[in-house]
Amino acid sequence: MTETYVEKFRDVHQLAHAELYTPVLEKSVEFFTEILGMTVVHEENGSVYLRAYEDTYKYSLILTPHHEAGMKHTAFRTYSPQALERRVEALEAAGVKGEWIEESYGHGRAYQFDDLDGHRLELFFEVERYEAPAHLSSKLRNRPQRRPLRGVPVRRIDHINFLTNEAKVPANAEFYVDQLGFNIREGVKKPDGDFFATWLSVSPLVHEVALMGDGLNGSGRLHHLAYWYGMPQHLDDLSDLCKEYGIEIEAGPLKHGVSQALCMYIIEPGGNRIELFGDSGYLILDPDKPTVEWPAEDTELAIIWYGGKLPETYFRHGTPAIKDETDELNIYFEPGENQIHEAKGN
Amino acid sequence: MTETYVEKFRDVHQLAHAELYTPVLEKSVEFFTEILGMTVVHEENGSVYLRAYEDTYKYSLILTPHHEAGMKHTAFRTYSPQALERRVEALEAAGVKGEWIEESYGHGRAYQFDDLDGHRLELFFEVERYEAPAHLSSKLRNRPQRRPLRGVPVRRIDHINFLTNEAKVPANAEFYVDQLGFNIREGVKKPDGDFFATWLSVSPLVHEVALMGDGLNGSGRLHHLAYWYGMPQHLDDLSDLCKEYGIEIEAGPLKHGVSQALCMYIIEPGGNRIELFGDSGYLILDPDKPTVEWPAEDTELAIIWYGGKLPETYFRHGTPAIKDETDELNIYFEPGENQIHEAKGN
Amino acid sequence: MTETYVEKFRDVHQLAHAELYTPVLEKSVEFFTEILGMTVVHEENGSVYLRAYEDTYKYSLILTPHHEAGMKHTAFRTYSPQALERRVEALEAAGVKGEWIEESYGHGRAYQFDDLDGHRLELFFEVERYEAPAHLSSKLRNRPQRRPLRGVPVRRIDHINFLTNEAKVPANAEFYVDQLGFNIREGVKKPDGDFFATWLSVSPLVHEVALMGDGLNGSGRLHHLAYWYGMPQHLDDLSDLCKEYGIEIEAGPLKHGVSQALCMYIIEPGGNRIELFGDSGYLILDPDKPTVEWPAEDTELAIIWYGGKLPETYFRHGTPAIKDETDELNIYFEPGENQIHEAKGN
Amino acid sequence: MTETYVEKFRDVHQLAHAELYTPVLEKSVEFFTEILGMTVVHEENGSVYLRAYEDTYKYSLILTPHHEAGMKHTAFRTYSPQALERRVEALEAAGVKGEWIEESYGHGRAYQFDDLDGHRLELFFEVERYEAPAHLSSKLRNRPQRRPLRGVPVRRIDHINFLTNEAKVPANAEFYVDQLGFNIREGVKKPDGDFFATWLSVSPLVHEVALMGDGLNGSGRLHHLAYWYGMPQHLDDLSDLCKEYGIEIEAGPLKHGVSQALCMYIIEPGGNRIELFGDSGYLILDPDKPTVEWPAEDTELAIIWYGGKLPETYFRHGTPAIKDETDELNIYFEPGENQIHEAKGN
Repeated sequence: MTETYVEKFRDVHQLAHAELYTPVLEKSVEFFTEILGMTVVHEENGSVYLRAYEDTYKYSLILTPHHEAGMKHTAFRTYSPQALERRVEALEAAGVKGEWIEESYGHGRAYQFDDLDGHRLELFFEVERYEAPAHLSSKLRNRPQRRPLRGVPVRRIDHINFLTNEAKVPANAEFYVDQLGFNIREGVKKPDGDFFATWLSVSPLVHEVALMGDGLNGSGRLHHLAYWYGMPQHLDDLSDLCKEYGIEIEAGPLKHGVSQALCMYIIEPGGNRIELFGDSGYLILDPDKPTVEWPAEDTELAIIWYGGKLPETYFRHGTPAIKDETDELNIYFEPGENQIHEAKGN
Repeated sequence: MTETYVEKFRDVHQLAHAELYTPVLEKSVEFFTEILGMTVVHEENGSVYLRAYEDTYKYSLILTPHHEAGMKHTAFRTYSPQALERRVEALEAAGVKGEWIEESYGHGRAYQFDDLDGHRLELFFEVERYEAPAHLSSKLRNRPQRRPLRGVPVRRIDHINFLTNEAKVPANAEFYVDQLGFNIREGVKKPDGDFFATWLSVSPLVHEVALMGDGLNGSGRLHHLAYWYGMPQHLDDLSDLCKEYGIEIEAGPLKHGVSQALCMYIIEPGGNRIELFGDSGYLILDPDKPTVEWPAEDTELAIIWYGGKLPETYFRHGTPAIKDETDELNIYFEPGENQIHEAKGN
Repeated sequence: MTETYVEKFRDVHQLAHAELYTPVLEKSVEFFTEILGMTVVHEENGSVYLRAYEDTYKYSLILTPHHEAGMKHTAFRTYSPQALERRVEALEAAGVKGEWIEESYGHGRAYQFDDLDGHRLELFFEVERYEAPAHLSSKLRNRPQRRPLRGVPVRRIDHINFLTNEAKVPANAEFYVDQLGFNIREGVKKPDGDFFATWLSVSPLVHEVALMGDGLNGSGRLHHLAYWYGMPQHLDDLSDLCKEYGIEIEAGPLKHGVSQALCMYIIEPGGNRIELFGDSGYLILDPDKPTVEWPAEDTELAIIWYGGKLPETYFRHGTPAIKDETDELNIYFEPGENQIHEAKGN
Repeated sequence: MTETYVEKFRDVHQLAHAELYTPVLEKSVEFFTEILGMTVVHEENGSVYLRAYEDTYKYSLILTPHHEAGMKHTAFRTYSPQALERRVEALEAAGVKGEWIEESYGHGRAYQFDDLDGHRLELFFEVERYEAPAHLSSKLRNRPQRRPLRGVPVRRIDHINFLTNEAKVPANAEFYVDQLGFNIREGVKKPDGDFFATWLSVSPLVHEVALMGDGLNGSGRLHHLAYWYGMPQHLDDLSDLCKEYGIEIEAGPLKHGVSQALCMYIIEPGGNRIELFGDSGYLILDPDKPTVEWPAEDTELAIIWYGGKLPETYFRHGTPAIKDETDELNIYFEPGENQIHEAKGN
């Protein structure tokens, strides 16, 4: 065994932040601050930078005004400066065309490029950690920021799910494996044996990235961005607030089969789907755990272990939305109305 | 059995509100609104009236400025107007001297009198139910007020615990039984066989009132006022906020033996002890359930089933505080410093 | 107000037990003992008597073999022996034909009669409380039996829901109010303004009895019997076990609008629907709280505040099942297969 | 920055199992199976091999009969066969004397050696994953074994805490860093600035190993072995069972400052301290996060963020126990009596 064992490289280390587009910036900011308890740390060129209170770096979310919702870019931090160089060399050797961004708020030079379905990715190493001002400083020395008093505050960014043109899911998953060092932790297969959806990670989390077939045949769309609570009750608390304040709950709380995560999906006022994780699911500490494969007939079980059924929207709604008048089943969300503003502070 | 069975009267029906003194009104209000998520509904003669979001009536707490903390009066609602008349007649026939209060904010005429240890009690029937203004109205038709966005919001008043001169505990418990129709649900005995503490109720709750021996030999003092969450996690959430914002946690989260309630004790900035209930313990639906008696040797188990030990302060601190320089073990709380104000809104 | 106020009688005090039919007795017993952690206390004439570990009396469930599932009788305990006499007199004066049962295991003489839709009810007062044998005795003096080590053990019986011929729901609800002293706590209306479903109680629980329109136009059927946990996590634990061991989860965990209860529905191997309560919802301590009425357009919200959608089966499946080949939408459950037996003890 | 950045090696990958001594093998097995829901998978030379239902490999715990409790050896799995070779070479180059074990149940050849305080460690790479027999197979494809029906079943091994001669804590921590590639995630300092306790990990978990000063000046002792639930309620459920069945709870449930873990400590019948984790605390996904240092004056906060105080025993009891008649404060545990056996199966 020893002679032939190939050690995998481990250069990409964690999901760092995502930049989302929103057509209703003010309402989106209100949602992320009042309901999810996030904190605004910076504004620049019209974009608003936000953090969850246990995010290590300055921010994990950038909200950027745009005529429609969607994901502008998603950033990963590498293990080291050398790891960053190695990945960029490998990407370029593989013919991927990217570009260096020299200056960004909160982190050093970064390399941006697209995955095979057109999702914009970014790699960087140098980063600024968050230093809380005195009035936001926690007494807990391993907590970068005092727990906020508003809403049901999320703790940290968890993962992102990219709708991927269905035909490209298997190749795109291989791209993350070969170019970025991800592991395919779990996958749901179509009757033809190809993956319809895959969950990939570079850490013991079951995924930092999921690639899921786009039911509307789109490309480069966002399925959802996920934040982490780690406490089951917080999903109930959040559900209660969402119902009270007019935030759309698409599904959950429910327990996924894949990842075993207790979760729920809501639509933020800009139209992007946000997932919340209410526990840790399971962690993969085993260095060479084989991919868990769910055959087509187990799809339902893979998606939901218990807690109801997923609505049609789940496999079709992504951002930017595709509005197709000829397709009766096409369901998409208009940016919603909520009642946070009027009730705030009372 | 049938011939001799005496049906008990059931005239007093529920705990309605408590009026607490505080030497630091503004800080106390800040605590109850920002940390416990309560809502101010009225101010009158310097007093502030607050409600939990699932309290049925207009308010359940009145905070009144005073040079020291304590309980000014505690009110119960009767089952009917007739029940009110019956109780007052019986009290007066028993030689209890009380007085009618004709006008009070939010309820009709009320009869005030003292229990045997000097705690001021009030009975009334006519009451105004809370009607939420539009911006605080819940979509849930059985919820009187929208769930607040601030802190870890309490749902309703639960019970009150009166420190009682130790020698008077048994007689005072009988006063609640004979004059007000309470049932002694549980009791902890001293080695001599008398009750050191009793838990009494008129409803399936294990107690609306507890009478507990005063370790400093005081009279008429408040041990604590309790609010209800019904969700275990909320005690963890509240603990986290209390530690972050400088609110004193005296004990818990822990599980009582008596009542089986998951609970915690904190000291509000004015010095009064506030208990929070994180589940429902058990309910007594059985109409003639015998008193559960805990012998002296089970005192520790009766107080804490699991979750640590109670500190010395638990049996000594009450409000108003008794400061006794000659007693080294005498522990009392100064109104505390907290950091809610500076962090609020951030 | 005082002059005209009519005091309501309060003679019926609590739900005591239910007797369910099952076509697969052994499998049903296995489910209630291994998955719900109940204890068998008695067997008589082929019936098996079971208790939850915090039930006060000897048992709360009787399983009786029969060719099909269903509810044989449901028993309530009265407040006193006098209350029992008063109710029987009133029922007979109202022309209800009932009969006295002189001997029953675990309780005294009982009066049995039908509600207006043919559900068999029973009233009694004298009862035997459970006395645990030494090896099942709890160290907690207010807990009648040691918490079991098997499954996710339920704590006590909570309520029962009777499918009622839709046209009879309003009149049957009035029967419970007028003859038995129940209060209509909540009701969901049809577009014509009549109640489609009502929730009734004699205690602060929102309901001991619910009456819900039978979607298959049956009479006298059981919708479900409910047991109580009081801890949200236990519904997740139970869901996990049900999925692992082949027990059908029909819906949930979810949060009802009506009653605000966190709950789930499963189908026991005999075909009866069992509900589990994961918290206390809210309690009605207010003696004269008006009925909460949900208009027809709020039906969905009334049934589910959050946590998914109810399946078609919810409004049609009851026991005994009605199998109607002409109705495509008619969904009913065959007694299920589970895998408890083979895995037990491993 | 890039030029001088040294990439750390990552050869040791996860905690795999621990072997504990027990003087009461049968009672210890009963505790781990009936209360913690573990499964016996193998017996060999008098030792019993057990697994938690989500452990990836065949077992995570070996119980070995001995005249006193303690830890016989603790095993870590390396990232690859090459990583195993590299670590052994480095250890031998550093003068550490170890030995190869050619055959072990469930894993390949292993290298055993001592840390600087005499705790026996083991490294291996080749391993057998658990394959459940049909009756223990889960419907969840990412769960190696069906969730058991007994007790409150633990999910996987989490970490181990070694009492370390107080003077050797800093040097021993450096040994784990230099020889095994651990990171010091958190540390509590003494007034002199040296670490009194350190928490170290090779994964995003805050620790797989903790080194804590031995309050009785011992060497090579075990403080505790920890298993993981990931659900806060399970600690309450376990507490309830422990109290009912005579298992000693030393402390908790409580929330650590260090690691932010919700936890509790119990003493298994053999005398070894077992910790249970009820959530995930926080994860360290950041590749170069600096050590969180707690100054001496924050020791209490570091140990307990909320949930009571640690007893004296916490800093003194380890296994094997040191019984010192001259030291009044010396507290140690005799193997306890429990009542699992008599109640089992009822």
